[in-house]
Amino acid sequence: MTATAPRRSGGRAARRDARAAPLADTLRPVRPGLDGGLYHPLTEAQMHRIHAAALDALEQIGLADAPPSGVEYMTRAGATLGTDGRLRFPRALIEDTVARANRAITLHGRDPRHDLSLSGNRVHYGTAGAAVHLVDAATGEYRESTVQDLHDAARIADTLDNIHFVQRPMVCRDIPDNREMDLNTLYACCAGTTKHVGVSFTEPEFVADALEMLHLIAGGEAAWRARPFVSNSNCFVVPPMKFATESCRVMEEVIRGGMPVLLLSAGQAGATAPAPIAGAIVQAVAECLAGLVYVNAVKPGHPAIFGTWPFVSDLRTGAMSGGSGEQALLSAGCAQMHKFYGLPGGAVGGIADSKLPDMQAGWEQATSNVMAGLSGLNMVYEAAGMHASLLGFCHESLILGDDLIGQALRCVRGIEVDEDTLSLEVIREACIGGPGHYLGAGQTLARMQTDYLYPACANRASPKEWVEQGQPDLVATATARKDRVLATRAPARFAADVDAAIRARFAIHLGA
Amino acid sequence: MTATAPRRSGGRAARRDARAAPLADTLRPVRPGLDGGLYHPLTEAQMHRIHAAALDALEQIGLADAPPSGVEYMTRAGATLGTDGRLRFPRALIEDTVARANRAITLHGRDPRHDLSLSGNRVHYGTAGAAVHLVDAATGEYRESTVQDLHDAARIADTLDNIHFVQRPMVCRDIPDNREMDLNTLYACCAGTTKHVGVSFTEPEFVADALEMLHLIAGGEAAWRARPFVSNSNCFVVPPMKFATESCRVMEEVIRGGMPVLLLSAGQAGATAPAPIAGAIVQAVAECLAGLVYVNAVKPGHPAIFGTWPFVSDLRTGAMSGGSGEQALLSAGCAQMHKFYGLPGGAVGGIADSKLPDMQAGWEQATSNVMAGLSGLNMVYEAAGMHASLLGFCHESLILGDDLIGQALRCVRGIEVDEDTLSLEVIREACIGGPGHYLGAGQTLARMQTDYLYPACANRASPKEWVEQGQPDLVATATARKDRVLATRAPARFAADVDAAIRARFAIHLGA
Repeated sequence: MTATAPRRSGGRAARRDARAAPLADTLRPVRPGLDGGLYHPLTEAQMHRIHAAALDALEQIGLADAPPSGVEYMTRAGATLGTDGRLRFPRALIEDTVARANRAITLHGRDPRHDLSLSGNRVHYGTAGAAVHLVDAATGEYRESTVQDLHDAARIADTLDNIHFVQRPMVCRDIPDNREMDLNTLYACCAGTTKHVGVSFTEPEFVADALEMLHLIAGGEAAWRARPFVSNSNCFVVPPMKFATESCRVMEEVIRGGMPVLLLSAGQAGATAPAPIAGAIVQAVAECLAGLVYVNAVKPGHPAIFGTWPFVSDLRTGAMSGGSGEQALLSAGCAQMHKFYGLPGGAVGGIADSKLPDMQAGWEQATSNVMAGLSGLNMVYEAAGMHASLLGFCHESLILGDDLIGQALRCVRGIEVDEDTLSLEVIREACIGGPGHYLGAGQTLARMQTDYLYPACANRASPKEWVEQGQPDLVATATARKDRVLATRAPARFAADVDAAIRARFAIHLGA
Repeated sequence: MTATAPRRSGGRAARRDARAAPLADTLRPVRPGLDGGLYHPLTEAQMHRIHAAALDALEQIGLADAPPSGVEYMTRAGATLGTDGRLRFPRALIEDTVARANRAITLHGRDPRHDLSLSGNRVHYGTAGAAVHLVDAATGEYRESTVQDLHDAARIADTLDNIHFVQRPMVCRDIPDNREMDLNTLYACCAGTTKHVGVSFTEPEFVADALEMLHLIAGGEAAWRARPFVSNSNCFVVPPMKFATESCRVMEEVIRGGMPVLLLSAGQAGATAPAPIAGAIVQAVAECLAGLVYVNAVKPGHPAIFGTWPFVSDLRTGAMSGGSGEQALLSAGCAQMHKFYGLPGGAVGGIADSKLPDMQAGWEQATSNVMAGLSGLNMVYEAAGMHASLLGFCHESLILGDDLIGQALRCVRGIEVDEDTLSLEVIREACIGGPGHYLGAGQTLARMQTDYLYPACANRASPKEWVEQGQPDLVATATARKDRVLATRAPARFAADVDAAIRARFAIHLGA
């Protein structure tokens, strides 16, 4: 019997085949862009108070250190420059900007299948960060991360259903020249995945080169501008309440180049932001509102993600703690403020303080990723792979994060209530003259693939089966999956002539 | 300078001393009974539909297999016995029962400091279950659990701030006689902790002995009845929609003995409950409403916890999966139905399918514990230590669970928004002529202990410090803590004469 032999039609085999076939996207138990937002950490009244405090901060305190170009853009829009060098923003300017800002952003993938539609409570998870170490999951060694590590992360993420975008999670520490580093970061990410990519340029002077590379990849500037598949993460403020002069100049350049921006305010509660959670949110919201004025003054309606990313300090030491409950609340509270404004937003989730993919990492990553999803955060950044409070990135953890985020997404999908799911007739049939259980019920078989999510690495075997399996180690299971991915996926995803053109023009460190 | 030398008054030392002193309970960052309920997995309309379907199921399908005594109690209350042997419940009977049921239950601790007040959205976490294995965290070995293991679990839980009650998590497999097992379970738990204890009696005939032991411990029947510090977990139904005859007879006995009951409906979606989440909730709600009629027919107003405990099947194998996102949703949905009725309720959280306290266990336990807390579940059972889908209990995992649940409780506590937390003046002071950060601000120091929770075992060190610490293994850290607790805590907590009286009357397996 050959592989092409006709199968029996009808009957159990047909049903089994139907179940084994991949599900249409709309039938999958989880998918990108599921609607969250059923968790409300803030009341309406509390959101109004946070908004009012942010408006007061912008009007009375304002932001220092805008570059001259930014001062010109924003004063022309209605901000005022004080004799103390601080730009202040009248209430009406903020309100008008929010009203006119782009409220529904598409972050394109190089493959349209991976386009992300940011609006409402639609939730997406992905990588991000600037880790300087690659974590060896087997030995616990932290070594400097390289462009190959970054590329491998992108290749792995490309295969993971629940990693929806690939913002650069690691710095290429093996490329000392900043321009080369930025361009190789862009190459390593884009060559590894056709999902939406995020980068962050160090200096405004590097943006032109980057755009040139993107035009090559896209097949021309028009094609790039029609579907920009890379966004730039702009740390446009140095909290509290100061513009980051260089990053602002980068931002102006990428806006001109048609690249969506992430307006990233990364204060740290208790250090560069107020210690109370509400106060850290107030400051982040104020800073991002200023950023929104800036972006819309440069180019009205330019896609900008409202990136309130307040972090948490462990106040015993002043060190960052991204794995804390306080961090989960900060991001969830921010997500609700994004809804308050009706703006596409992003914040952090999934950071582990733990140095390794251990139980601590599991609970730290799950707590914030679940809370972010339930609160309807559009973009959950740093959602997988991040350890040591963002200092280390781990490929195995990224892979396990796919299972973890799958579970979070299942929670985000929530509970459907309709005549079929209420199951009154199914209960009746099971109990009155029926088998007294639901094991073979039509409804059970029908729901098996659409309602239930099955993990890839997580082990659900009984202790007996688990012993028979040889007590598989979770991290070793992830390592095996990593090795399979890296052994079988093509190292670059560009057409040969495109790749050659890029390599002719730029010093690409990854081997062809 | 001796330890009693007078300290300098005022200044940094005084502030340091003040910070080092234990916080008053009301100032602690987390505590038992924090208010949850900001996550609403079901809309009002959805809850009404679930309620209506449950009423239909009770009126039309009813429950089989009530014991004769139960039939008498419930028909006298208004239920009707069909010729098919099923008890059916008119809508008005259910509605009247809900209206008159006990809506605010106190679960007493032997020490009043540990009393739990169950009402509204007040959240408590604790152990529960019937694991048959003790998990050796170092070797991964699953061996049969013993009365000593159970006693040790109670002693450990007694020291953990975020484990609020100790329902028996393991079966004493070394005591073959069921009566002796039940009595030793009671002794091992109560001798290990002064927190509220939960047990589950196998046969109605054992209850009188148990009450005799409890009267001895309490110092007489009146003292026991005034503050019953043990509740009984009654699996009063065999889902779908059948009373568990023996367990019902146990329930009648414990009600007469003044012991609060947990009305536990433990269906498994896809096996003994409908596969859709909504349907599994409908069935659990219907069964618990029937149980509530039963309890209130025996003794109006008797404290009964509405124990909708639907579990999840992995539909590929039919095995249980307590660590899934579907499980987290089931418990959260049930919690919301408890609020719909205004009844104190409990469900499961914190179950790991993983066999060991690894990353999988961390994300599984965190996801459901966080969701349970956010949904305002009064009693989160099986919240710590549970592995292999309830088959194994692990002492180290219990200890790590304390950190994990602490984080969940921090999330439950939520975000306080008031003039001080909004921090406008603090932001102003930092930015305008201030230091440009919040590190030494009075607000930061004041919030350091009241707003921020610091884990006991979880490691927040930087990679460099972590290497200097010798790369401590998380589970080994928990083992060390376990060994300290078991080495230093007294093995029994009863007065010598009480313990002697119990030992004279009953065959106690634990050494004196």
